[in-house]
Amino acid sequence: MPKFEGLQQEYNMGKKPLILVTNDDGITAPGIRALIEVMNELGDVVVVAPDSPQSGMGHAITINSTLHCSKISLDDGPQTEYSCSGTPADCVKLAVNELLDRKPDLCVSGINHGSNSSINVIYSGTMSAALEAGIEGIPAIGFSLLDFRWGANFDIIKPYVKEITQKALKNKIPENVVLNVNFPKGVDTPIQGIKVCRQAKAYWVEEFDKRTNPMGREYYWLTGKFINEDGGEDTDEWALENNYISVVPVQYDLTAHHAIQKLNTWQFE
Amino acid sequence: MPKFEGLQQEYNMGKKPLILVTNDDGITAPGIRALIEVMNELGDVVVVAPDSPQSGMGHAITINSTLHCSKISLDDGPQTEYSCSGTPADCVKLAVNELLDRKPDLCVSGINHGSNSSINVIYSGTMSAALEAGIEGIPAIGFSLLDFRWGANFDIIKPYVKEITQKALKNKIPENVVLNVNFPKGVDTPIQGIKVCRQAKAYWVEEFDKRTNPMGREYYWLTGKFINEDGGEDTDEWALENNYISVVPVQYDLTAHHAIQKLNTWQFE
Repeated sequence: MPKFEGLQQEYNMGKKPLILVTNDDGITAPGIRALIEVMNELGDVVVVAPDSPQSGMGHAITINSTLHCSKISLDDGPQTEYSCSGTPADCVKLAVNELLDRKPDLCVSGINHGSNSSINVIYSGTMSAALEAGIEGIPAIGFSLLDFRWGANFDIIKPYVKEITQKALKNKIPENVVLNVNFPKGVDTPIQGIKVCRQAKAYWVEEFDKRTNPMGREYYWLTGKFINEDGGEDTDEWALENNYISVVPVQYDLTAHHAIQKLNTWQFE
Repeated sequence: MPKFEGLQQEYNMGKKPLILVTNDDGITAPGIRALIEVMNELGDVVVVAPDSPQSGMGHAITINSTLHCSKISLDDGPQTEYSCSGTPADCVKLAVNELLDRKPDLCVSGINHGSNSSINVIYSGTMSAALEAGIEGIPAIGFSLLDFRWGANFDIIKPYVKEITQKALKNKIPENVVLNVNFPKGVDTPIQGIKVCRQAKAYWVEEFDKRTNPMGREYYWLTGKFINEDGGEDTDEWALENNYISVVPVQYDLTAHHAIQKLNTWQFE
């Protein structure tokens, strides 16, 4: 890994960058603890993260109920930490608009326990936090590891998390874009490098597991099978299958600009 | 409004289209009841909608708890209806993969009580249902009225909902695109027409209302102010302010393709 000697002096005329850290697995998850460790080497860190797992929350926000937030301390690190009752998007809103004195220089979310590649970006609480920061004008990166286990090995990816974050601070993420970074499981096979990719065209085929509860009422568990129908070698799925780290620039302007012309031929009244 | 005489005969060689109806305000909301009424004129209707309001749920899905679903009847219409404990995205997954015999020809979501224009598309349960259908290869439209009230007047927009749906069935929505349709409040001023638009660049500035509960613990209510910084006359916000109906084609490939080249200059190891 290259070292960026004196890099921190470049931000804000000598001041350390202010880095907001959040996630969707909850503030005690090993993934966010690893991320905090890396970020403490790069700047002043404030953590505002959910007090419980929020996986699959997409870009949910808390409208019809109240939010709680407590300052806590979970280890001996120099970071400031807040545990919050809301969703990942709520955490970013609360941090930026209520808890922080100034706008953060960067928001990082993760490291997620499990993939947020291809279509998973849509369902991802991790990425919704990054997108929320992006919408508020804060450079943002979501990190995810393709390993669901609580005991997943985050140590081997820490140097890459650091490198990507340093590059983002130095080169600036393009405007209106946030980064979606996914790491291959990479326990047995060494990581091959970092690839800038597009989102693969993939989807889930759901299989509902129908059961009957002790009171005789039917209920379902949502399970599914991931289908990647995209053969392109420029996709995140291809990169990850081949042990590369995937970096996808993600936008929150959802307009399908290419379709506007077509729709204008529909001749609305 | 133009009539499409004999239009239904065009679909599936004479068969009526199968239309899946859902929303995020809950199955009893006046908005979805209005939508069902219009769809009953156009096809065979199956409703699978949340049993309680799910506003602001974004693209949340239910992973860590179970789903319940009951066949119910709320009025004398010919539609089949299911009330479901999940999110809007869950409802679509459950409908397509468990409840319906065949793939629907169209999925319509709404009519939402409140705007889903510009950046609101990101937080919208209504649009997440439409996007979920799109991801599963089903043509889909989300409808929203810029009026939050339970007693909002849906009658005046029904002919437009019908027209847009007929056009979508006849002309086919472009692949990998779903439609985000918003209606101006339009109670006092007549609707000027229908405009195909892009998503305006806008955002919310949150104001957290901090309070203390009877036990002395602090909590927050999330409130906010909508900021549209986009002066373009081709945006959904412009159209709605000028009493046009906005139709934005929305995509779920979130890749910022234009940023890939730039990121490739970062020289990752």
